[in-house]
Amino acid sequence: MPIDNSNMLKVIEDFPQQCKTALELPKGMSVSGKVDKIVVCGMGGSAVGGDLLKICMHDSKIPVFVVRDYKVPDFVDENTLVFAVSYSGNTEETLAAYEDALKKKARIVAVTSGGQLGSMAKRVVKIPAGLQPRAALGYLFFPVLGVLVNSGIADVKGKEVEEMLDILSKTDEFKAVGERIAKKIGQRTPIVYASEMLAPVAYRWKTQFNENSKVASFCHTFSEMNHNEIAGFQTMNRSDFIAIFIRDKHDNERIKKRMDITKEIISTRVDVEEVFTKGEHLLSRIFSGIYYGDFASYYLAIANRVDPTPVTVIETLKKKLR
Amino acid sequence: MPIDNSNMLKVIEDFPQQCKTALELPKGMSVSGKVDKIVVCGMGGSAVGGDLLKICMHDSKIPVFVVRDYKVPDFVDENTLVFAVSYSGNTEETLAAYEDALKKKARIVAVTSGGQLGSMAKRVVKIPAGLQPRAALGYLFFPVLGVLVNSGIADVKGKEVEEMLDILSKTDEFKAVGERIAKKIGQRTPIVYASEMLAPVAYRWKTQFNENSKVASFCHTFSEMNHNEIAGFQTMNRSDFIAIFIRDKHDNERIKKRMDITKEIISTRVDVEEVFTKGEHLLSRIFSGIYYGDFASYYLAIANRVDPTPVTVIETLKKKLR
Repeated sequence: MPIDNSNMLKVIEDFPQQCKTALELPKGMSVSGKVDKIVVCGMGGSAVGGDLLKICMHDSKIPVFVVRDYKVPDFVDENTLVFAVSYSGNTEETLAAYEDALKKKARIVAVTSGGQLGSMAKRVVKIPAGLQPRAALGYLFFPVLGVLVNSGIADVKGKEVEEMLDILSKTDEFKAVGERIAKKIGQRTPIVYASEMLAPVAYRWKTQFNENSKVASFCHTFSEMNHNEIAGFQTMNRSDFIAIFIRDKHDNERIKKRMDITKEIISTRVDVEEVFTKGEHLLSRIFSGIYYGDFASYYLAIANRVDPTPVTVIETLKKKLR
Repeated sequence: MPIDNSNMLKVIEDFPQQCKTALELPKGMSVSGKVDKIVVCGMGGSAVGGDLLKICMHDSKIPVFVVRDYKVPDFVDENTLVFAVSYSGNTEETLAAYEDALKKKARIVAVTSGGQLGSMAKRVVKIPAGLQPRAALGYLFFPVLGVLVNSGIADVKGKEVEEMLDILSKTDEFKAVGERIAKKIGQRTPIVYASEMLAPVAYRWKTQFNENSKVASFCHTFSEMNHNEIAGFQTMNRSDFIAIFIRDKHDNERIKKRMDITKEIISTRVDVEEVFTKGEHLLSRIFSGIYYGDFASYYLAIANRVDPTPVTVIETLKKKLR
């Protein structure tokens, strides 16, 4: 019976400490000059970091783009700040996008534990190595945010960070909810929903179920799912799927109502579990939402008797790609 | 036994003609002055139109954003061209986003068959009423592209349009492939994949399966799925899921290789069907990719003995939302 051989539980439990460390990493690093567009290049967890930045910059005049591809858009130019984010520093898509951004004369900051990216890039926020990339979300996200704060482009108040760390440090509450949800899921395929605003939180849950628990999982947003995906529930079965709604007290009132009514409608076909984000500030709400899912995916792996850490399929693929 | 009571088949068969008509609709409409950002607001099929615009503008210096929400981003200003797209003209999210864009002094073009949006907006491309919004993709997309061409912002050559219309007019080929795939799917949940570039084509397939066939369906992109979703196949079953790859001769060589290897890996757990886009030009490749899926979703509805046209669940939801 395989178990948690690499101690993924401990890594997840240590996440608040990882955030603390990550917040210190970009100290002293900033960019100067005009920045009118921000692009985050990365895949998997690194791209989720970019999605989170996009949320955090929602009230900025500077648009943020997340690129999960081998090239950056053609509008990238010398006024574009590009973050090339790769935990290993060897993600081929990110390396190609980095080269493309360089050719387009963008200003580039790399966030990586080393690898080729660490050697190539002039400006690097070096992050600690040794984790599964998906377990390093704090390291992948806060340096990007930190460079923007240092550069006067983003604004994060001390109390926002404090509230987040305070909330996350109550680890046991997240564990309990995660364990409960994993039990509820059982052998069913979880579909995770959040508002458009918190879409990356739902996506993170989905990817954690895929990678930690090694199960199918999908996600979508409110209210877009009301325009198409909801129609599919008509033929779905309680024994096959389960819906998880990530709810936030700051969700638009219409979104709240849509979630309530959708729950009522689809409950005739599938079970619906609800999880509520914690805190007043955006960082708390994002990372509390994510933290529940990290534990849920961990406990689902354990319940399914799979080791949450290794992702053999992805390693096999990488070998075949060489 | 419910069947195609509203003749969805005929509507899908007429799609090439719809495109022809739609191409004429924006004649004479253009915007002048500086435009440095484009935002398309819409939900469902209208938003897919925005996603397609984003693809078509991939080599433009002007970034395109698609908003599936009640508000537009804070960077929207007087140099932003906003398209408010709603087939009925009464989509609440789009109406709210329209108001928000107006407040932010954006220049706005509405694309609608009427409704509140048709009355409120000063600049309107009026499109024919009477279809299901998802069956009106040509009307929802080409007017947006046309206004940009008329304004000197986008460039579409006559031969690109001709190639597309020529390819789509061979309707029987698309029908045959669609019917074959529907048969192959049977009672399984289709998961549709395309390159990041053709992501909206995969999303369109998924939403058509949801709305026309009334079944669960999901989608994701290459290579992002290689970083997470692929791990979920480890526990998936041939009897539950089927993967559909939308392939394009212009896919990046690494993406092609990733698709080949992924197919090899996941074939041990699920069947994989491949569909190849047609044509040399982007418009042909996009719409041929989409057209296969429209027919596949239609035939899947018929095989499942559901009428493809009504989406009762969505209508019920809308009533409860009032």
